[in-house]
Amino acid sequence: MAGYDYDLLVIGGGSGGVRAARLAAGLGKKVLIAEEYRYGGTCVIRGCVPKKLFVYASQFSEHFADSAGYGWTPGKPSFDWPTLVANKDMEIARLEGLYRLGLDKAGAEIVNSRAELVDAHHARLMADGRVVSAERMLIAVGGTPNPHAALPGHELCISSNEAFDLPELPKAIVIAGGGYIAVEFANIFHGLGVETTLIYRGKEILSRFDIDMRRSLHKAMAEKGITILCQEIFEKIERGADGRLVAHTSEGKAIVADQVMLALGRDPNTQGLGLEAAGVETDHKGAILVDDYSRTNVDNIYAVGDVTDRVQLTPVAIHEAMCFIDTVYRGKPTKPDHELIATAVFSQPEIGTIGLSEDEAAKRFDELEIYRAEFRPMRVILAGRNEKMVMKLVVNAADRKVLGAHILGPDAGELAQVLAIAIKAGCTKDDFDRTMAVHPTAAEELVTMYQPSYRVKGGERI
Amino acid sequence: MAGYDYDLLVIGGGSGGVRAARLAAGLGKKVLIAEEYRYGGTCVIRGCVPKKLFVYASQFSEHFADSAGYGWTPGKPSFDWPTLVANKDMEIARLEGLYRLGLDKAGAEIVNSRAELVDAHHARLMADGRVVSAERMLIAVGGTPNPHAALPGHELCISSNEAFDLPELPKAIVIAGGGYIAVEFANIFHGLGVETTLIYRGKEILSRFDIDMRRSLHKAMAEKGITILCQEIFEKIERGADGRLVAHTSEGKAIVADQVMLALGRDPNTQGLGLEAAGVETDHKGAILVDDYSRTNVDNIYAVGDVTDRVQLTPVAIHEAMCFIDTVYRGKPTKPDHELIATAVFSQPEIGTIGLSEDEAAKRFDELEIYRAEFRPMRVILAGRNEKMVMKLVVNAADRKVLGAHILGPDAGELAQVLAIAIKAGCTKDDFDRTMAVHPTAAEELVTMYQPSYRVKGGERI
Repeated sequence: MAGYDYDLLVIGGGSGGVRAARLAAGLGKKVLIAEEYRYGGTCVIRGCVPKKLFVYASQFSEHFADSAGYGWTPGKPSFDWPTLVANKDMEIARLEGLYRLGLDKAGAEIVNSRAELVDAHHARLMADGRVVSAERMLIAVGGTPNPHAALPGHELCISSNEAFDLPELPKAIVIAGGGYIAVEFANIFHGLGVETTLIYRGKEILSRFDIDMRRSLHKAMAEKGITILCQEIFEKIERGADGRLVAHTSEGKAIVADQVMLALGRDPNTQGLGLEAAGVETDHKGAILVDDYSRTNVDNIYAVGDVTDRVQLTPVAIHEAMCFIDTVYRGKPTKPDHELIATAVFSQPEIGTIGLSEDEAAKRFDELEIYRAEFRPMRVILAGRNEKMVMKLVVNAADRKVLGAHILGPDAGELAQVLAIAIKAGCTKDDFDRTMAVHPTAAEELVTMYQPSYRVKGGERI
Repeated sequence: MAGYDYDLLVIGGGSGGVRAARLAAGLGKKVLIAEEYRYGGTCVIRGCVPKKLFVYASQFSEHFADSAGYGWTPGKPSFDWPTLVANKDMEIARLEGLYRLGLDKAGAEIVNSRAELVDAHHARLMADGRVVSAERMLIAVGGTPNPHAALPGHELCISSNEAFDLPELPKAIVIAGGGYIAVEFANIFHGLGVETTLIYRGKEILSRFDIDMRRSLHKAMAEKGITILCQEIFEKIERGADGRLVAHTSEGKAIVADQVMLALGRDPNTQGLGLEAAGVETDHKGAILVDDYSRTNVDNIYAVGDVTDRVQLTPVAIHEAMCFIDTVYRGKPTKPDHELIATAVFSQPEIGTIGLSEDEAAKRFDELEIYRAEFRPMRVILAGRNEKMVMKLVVNAADRKVLGAHILGPDAGELAQVLAIAIKAGCTKDDFDRTMAVHPTAAEELVTMYQPSYRVKGGERI
């Protein structure tokens, strides 16, 4: 690193940046990592982790109700929002500490400061104005909720960032968006007793998922009591005389709520980062353009994670960071693999999915076998709930390969994680058929659907 | 079937018998199925199904306790045992109805009677004394708890059969046995507030499982407050003056309890079945001996399920029944496949397992890589519980094949079911490594253990 202060400057202390900094330092490189807010990034601080904790919290109301069918009288449970927020904060602080500890142990230097690029090899640490030089840079600054500045009254709205730390639980909330963040928060607030409305401009929530999952989840959420308005958008948000908010919609409705949350996509955090000064190119959304190895158009500058707007998921950012290390510091050029990524929506019921939806598969393959089971999971039967679990396998008729698996129901995310191993390895439906059931489980349905529910040929269901 | 009343007589209306009768009738065969008790067999009536319902019931006490960390005040929950028993009975009656309906729709004739063999082609229906003839017979009468008749006072004890229908919930129970039935019931009763003791003659519970799972579950159960006595057995059971039972142990203890449950293995239900008259051979335990195709030594008589004492699991009985149909009625001789069967222990925490334990694998393969993770699942952290989840992969170093996977923790049974697909298909550790994580899940640990925790070479840990 002749002439540079550091071998590597990592800008951004989220999942991708921390992993890269830790591994590079572990290999003996001199590493500085700069983060302006808190270490852990979106995932730990205001994403996956607090979200999942809130999901757990919101499920207890269902546990209490379910217990009656099993002989329990649950008493009169009550819920205190500030306790949940405080306990969540403690856990996040613990995890942030672990992230810092990991960096520290590996020998990376940590700085609590925003860093802005001065040129391809220099960055200014804004906390004290110091300029540092580095042989290589890794930009991993992530993204931030789109504020929807064109919406009159958007400044009265919250995003997922604020939702985690509201001073009090709203009595009613309206959430705009049809993606997983909007859907997850709708379920969280509903489970905590909040009157919840979801509003989405599209025809059906969760646009890139299998249509079966989308419709079945919509139905389940509506049956729980969540109001879902599709093909409808906000026109204006106002504060009423009583202090509550009024959301006016394109269909002429005026929805009164204590909070209005916008979950309308996320933008890369590249504003004011000095990318122009360093000559780093971005796309029209501000996302950093990278090649197959996460390298920007500037030779010594790389970028990973949400800021590159490839696949905005924590494990993908970490994977990209590990590939970066292999490529740059281990002499093993490695392209991140973005094929067949399983994902979960922590809605209630949950969605877990891997591979192609039926519609996507129908476009690419001549003939499909669709295996589909819909049933009440055992646990909800005595509870007297009507909730259905849906499992669906999309199989290429030509070679029996399982192209996609889609699950709606308890622990669907866990199931999708493990299914991903088999599907990534190219397992066929015959491999599923050969597997003995484990009884009684929900997952046994995945290996006991011996006959196709229907076939799709030339894009048509037959 | 020239000269016979039926093409097929099925004796026993459990999982294996019902599946065979239904499929044979569906193929146009004239089928009679005889069951002396209730349709559905051990699984539905007094096994898997009521057991799992009781497991769910017993988990609510933990849900109530856990809720506090998430901001809830659960009130003062109370539990009513007769409500649980009654609701369980309703569900079993519903399932039994579905079993009968399936048989009926397929065109099988159902008789509510014990059937005893008279010769290789004739059986007596004991309900009315009628003798029927059949070209082929399938014996699927299952098994029953071993009563341990040598134990003084065994007649004061219950088995799992009675445990499902106790008139009242005991204040204290002692359960003898170290198998999955004993372990599951210990957790059920403990969760329902019963003072629970488990007593087992062996060194450690669950003898055929991976030692890590056995020890970790033992520890978790003990921490919950279940007393586990290993290398100790009952010497005598007596009724005390106060009406409660006293279990005297080999270590000189006198344990007072309201119920003593024996879960010391199961015996085939072959007594008085007329096997001698038909010339059907059994082993020393009374299990019917069969060849690779489930055929007994008598050409036209087959047997499937627990009565053959191969692998005593519902899905295996069903699989054997389906292979019997393929072999006998579809002209496709098919051997049941008993290799790589995933199983679950619905303890709390749960165990899910597939393939070889570390110790078994070490005997068969020169060098192993062991990948092991132990962590607190996210849900229990805010709950303030100390429960650990354990995941372990046993990998053959020579070819990287995953030989076994063992999980202790929430939904381990579900995870094992899906893991079984990958492992049955011969997936390697590289297939696991190539799989992107789903975050935050517990199962992501299965695909992010990149470095072996340790190796085993020539049977020794290195």
